[in-house]
Amino acid sequence: MTNIPALEKISSNKVFEGHLEKYKFKSNALGGLDTQFNIFIPRASNGSKVPVLIYLAGLTCTEDNGAQKGGFFTPAASQGIAILFPDTSPRGAGIEGENDDWDFGTGAGFYLDATNPKYSKHYNMATYITEELPKVVEAAGLPIDFSRQSIFGHSMGGHGALTLYLASKTKQYRSASAFAPISNPSKCPWGEKAFKGYLSGGVEEALAKYDATELIAKATDPLHILIDYGTSDDFYKKGQLLPENFLKTARDAGYDEVQVRVRRHEGYDHSYYFISTFASDHIHFHANFLKA
Amino acid sequence: MTNIPALEKISSNKVFEGHLEKYKFKSNALGGLDTQFNIFIPRASNGSKVPVLIYLAGLTCTEDNGAQKGGFFTPAASQGIAILFPDTSPRGAGIEGENDDWDFGTGAGFYLDATNPKYSKHYNMATYITEELPKVVEAAGLPIDFSRQSIFGHSMGGHGALTLYLASKTKQYRSASAFAPISNPSKCPWGEKAFKGYLSGGVEEALAKYDATELIAKATDPLHILIDYGTSDDFYKKGQLLPENFLKTARDAGYDEVQVRVRRHEGYDHSYYFISTFASDHIHFHANFLKA
Repeated sequence: MTNIPALEKISSNKVFEGHLEKYKFKSNALGGLDTQFNIFIPRASNGSKVPVLIYLAGLTCTEDNGAQKGGFFTPAASQGIAILFPDTSPRGAGIEGENDDWDFGTGAGFYLDATNPKYSKHYNMATYITEELPKVVEAAGLPIDFSRQSIFGHSMGGHGALTLYLASKTKQYRSASAFAPISNPSKCPWGEKAFKGYLSGGVEEALAKYDATELIAKATDPLHILIDYGTSDDFYKKGQLLPENFLKTARDAGYDEVQVRVRRHEGYDHSYYFISTFASDHIHFHANFLKA
Repeated sequence: MTNIPALEKISSNKVFEGHLEKYKFKSNALGGLDTQFNIFIPRASNGSKVPVLIYLAGLTCTEDNGAQKGGFFTPAASQGIAILFPDTSPRGAGIEGENDDWDFGTGAGFYLDATNPKYSKHYNMATYITEELPKVVEAAGLPIDFSRQSIFGHSMGGHGALTLYLASKTKQYRSASAFAPISNPSKCPWGEKAFKGYLSGGVEEALAKYDATELIAKATDPLHILIDYGTSDDFYKKGQLLPENFLKTARDAGYDEVQVRVRRHEGYDHSYYFISTFASDHIHFHANFLKA
């Protein structure tokens, strides 16, 4: 009846009394390519379903970076929250030029659905994250309650978390948070390059769905957003992140700091050392809503 | 007057309100080769000197693995303890065959001083860790109090931590701990291969200095040792670690579980996921002695 791909388990590591499991499957959203993900399942699940936090990683990363370096499992284990780590793009599509740049193509899917015919068969990370992956995980019988989802991410993954949260018509996610997110991609080189490449309508097409600052300008629903960034982040200094644009637009749209909190941290950079420092804050932020 | 090599700073990342700094220098102990290390300096130092924990990594690792994946900084920051992460071997010695195996040569220095002339110019990790590195760090003016040192490590680095602790005639380290250590290397394939290669006297030569089980059999001083290992650790199952030998010998030598604690954990493996799970326990164990 259904055509939900089956999971193949690759590995399982016990961690903080729970398990980090790695799976792969043939993704329809990604044009039939194999894709891998990690999922942390806390011991607290004990068979009964637990809420889940989706972690979207940044440029060049895979499903492993957040799992290995994020420092998420201490608080996730104590809160009884699962964490799902997808990859950052399809891999092996075989599209010409796909592996030429570190900020476009492989490892740089930007969590959107491509409309440029060159990419539209495979580069559909938005559909993959919001629709296919939850279905596949659920069908496999993993103890995850997808009615209690939140989403967070780093850099390009912060962009993904904010935009998938803000653009969701079904209020799929209860809360969103981001470490050093690309907050206004239509106005930064990374975002412009990605939108011109993946979307047949270019940057203009991205405004309505894939730019967090554009999205929050028109938002009206109650929001739960936390953003952290550091002043020694080279990409922040080069204007790739633009969190001030997001913050100002959020305030102009009437969101106060209870609903949209943006924290600026002196001396922190773009690395996982920065992420791990504030990891616990983010998990506990989401726990407020996931366990409400 | 002195001939202490100068440090060159490679990078600095703010983490948990302290800093992780990476340096390199030309090491005399390693035959004049460049070597790198990381050091976490907690904010608590604030200019005044802090105690230090040396972390010795395992086979194939560098100074980065523990820093990136160990999960040590949350507890180290709260306890005000520095962590020093050396590399696992000299690099680039140019010795024939040095890069052929993952468990010997580059990335596999075994924390000993080689006596085989083929290796004895460069492979002197014991002298490097116990003598040169503290001197170099101190001479550079970093705020570390080397009169308060303890040592820990993983796998081959657990072997290093236990043997350097037990063999020290000066009681250089206040305590030692290890994750999945090679505990009786003269009786396992990894250790036999290393000793036959690095030592002109082979395994026999290693017994007096480089085998933790042999060393504890003759120990008489009060000891502070903590060891954790997992039952799903493939290297444990293959007989590379032999923690039971160490434990039995320690008990036979009169050490009770207050002085030598060996914990067996159901289902954990050899990975950094295992290490990160018990990282906090180890930091707090050492804090008892470093801050006494």
